[in-house]
Amino acid sequence: MRRIKLTVSYDGTAYCGWQIQPNGVTVEEVLNRALSRLTGETVRVTGASRTDAGVHARGNVAVFDTASAIPPERVAYAVNAVLPEDIVAVESQEVPPDWHPRYQNSVKTYEYRILNREMPDPLRRRDSWHVSFPLDVDRMRAAAACLVGEHDFRSFCSVHTGAKTTVRKICALDIVKSEDLITLRISGNGFLYNMVRIIAGTLVEAGRRARTPEEVREILEARERGRAGATAPPQGLVLADIRYLYSPDE
Amino acid sequence: MRRIKLTVSYDGTAYCGWQIQPNGVTVEEVLNRALSRLTGETVRVTGASRTDAGVHARGNVAVFDTASAIPPERVAYAVNAVLPEDIVAVESQEVPPDWHPRYQNSVKTYEYRILNREMPDPLRRRDSWHVSFPLDVDRMRAAAACLVGEHDFRSFCSVHTGAKTTVRKICALDIVKSEDLITLRISGNGFLYNMVRIIAGTLVEAGRRARTPEEVREILEARERGRAGATAPPQGLVLADIRYLYSPDE
Repeated sequence: MRRIKLTVSYDGTAYCGWQIQPNGVTVEEVLNRALSRLTGETVRVTGASRTDAGVHARGNVAVFDTASAIPPERVAYAVNAVLPEDIVAVESQEVPPDWHPRYQNSVKTYEYRILNREMPDPLRRRDSWHVSFPLDVDRMRAAAACLVGEHDFRSFCSVHTGAKTTVRKICALDIVKSEDLITLRISGNGFLYNMVRIIAGTLVEAGRRARTPEEVREILEARERGRAGATAPPQGLVLADIRYLYSPDE
Repeated sequence: MRRIKLTVSYDGTAYCGWQIQPNGVTVEEVLNRALSRLTGETVRVTGASRTDAGVHARGNVAVFDTASAIPPERVAYAVNAVLPEDIVAVESQEVPPDWHPRYQNSVKTYEYRILNREMPDPLRRRDSWHVSFPLDVDRMRAAAACLVGEHDFRSFCSVHTGAKTTVRKICALDIVKSEDLITLRISGNGFLYNMVRIIAGTLVEAGRRARTPEEVREILEARERGRAGATAPPQGLVLADIRYLYSPDE
């Protein structure tokens, strides 16, 4: 048996998220079916990040074990032939049999895209949040600055979290504006449930001058979900990549 | 009666093009239905550009006549409330009663997007052509240069054209590469049927070194559709904007 690491890109629009569930089609389920068809085995992938319904990925990671003779680096090409066009395996490689995509030091990077103009853009409706009122990007940056570092992010976590601790470390939070698109790029060693979307919703409130940057610091210190802004909609969120600090090759 | 000019943006993926036809839903038909519902009249729009099935627009233009009391500049907002989310009216204004979106000097700009990387990107599959072999952008630019200006573009026109003349003028043809996305941006006073997509297909052949830039000049001079490259697929094409040389306000 070999363990194969797959890097997976998907348009989450049509899926009820990553994780298998009874009420709808998920990315995990479609991957299992495609890999089972490819190998002739019953494949069960283990994913790094269980993205929510409607959330996208450029580089989510999954592993699975197989006795198949397909060369590990060819698995991505082979499985793409049986995957639907909204899920693409962008890379595959062999990893040690005990390598686990969640029990490994890693830095995850998410991007949240906000289309900031008066009218919606039908070509961006699936991968951005349309905010029609003007946003002050400098205020958003000032508010974002106090979130960088290690903090208790309980205020930025949906209440039904199962996490043992709500302390997380944000390594970087950059906000880039290009024409009418504002992209928040957030990197960290782990994120709580809905954390990036609640941060995005709160920074938009700072950008529209409904909150001061100082209030965002108070929200963080309050450790109370009710103090932060609304959860931004899923279609603006993309899991951009997961960088493992000790790569499986080493 | 007033004549209203609408600037319309759409994701063409779900439509059989602009023009009403018996075998599927079109953008024109959906606009007529929405404007009729809004005004309580039987509205028939006249479009500037009859984009093909699967082709997108950021700024197509249509006019219609109405006795409605809705202020002209509010029509866009009002009709968006009854349009599906893949069609958006981005602007509306009153124009003189004889103003016609096709019988007017104008410069149209199209963009053709090529995603040039080995693996497809599920988030770009609806608005780009995925070309997996490497493209030499400098060669594409050299090949494009001979197309700029006034020429007989018969080689770059689908044979079933109804146009009286195949002479057209390309004002500009710029090729911009940003990460793995190559965008052709073409402006001109008019385009033949499939002209931009045949130019894109031919420039990709130059970029992959299947043709020399000099051959593209020979194709132009041959005036024979069979000499040019394949018609690039529709989802890469966006009608970016139509600039009227004498704007209706003046």
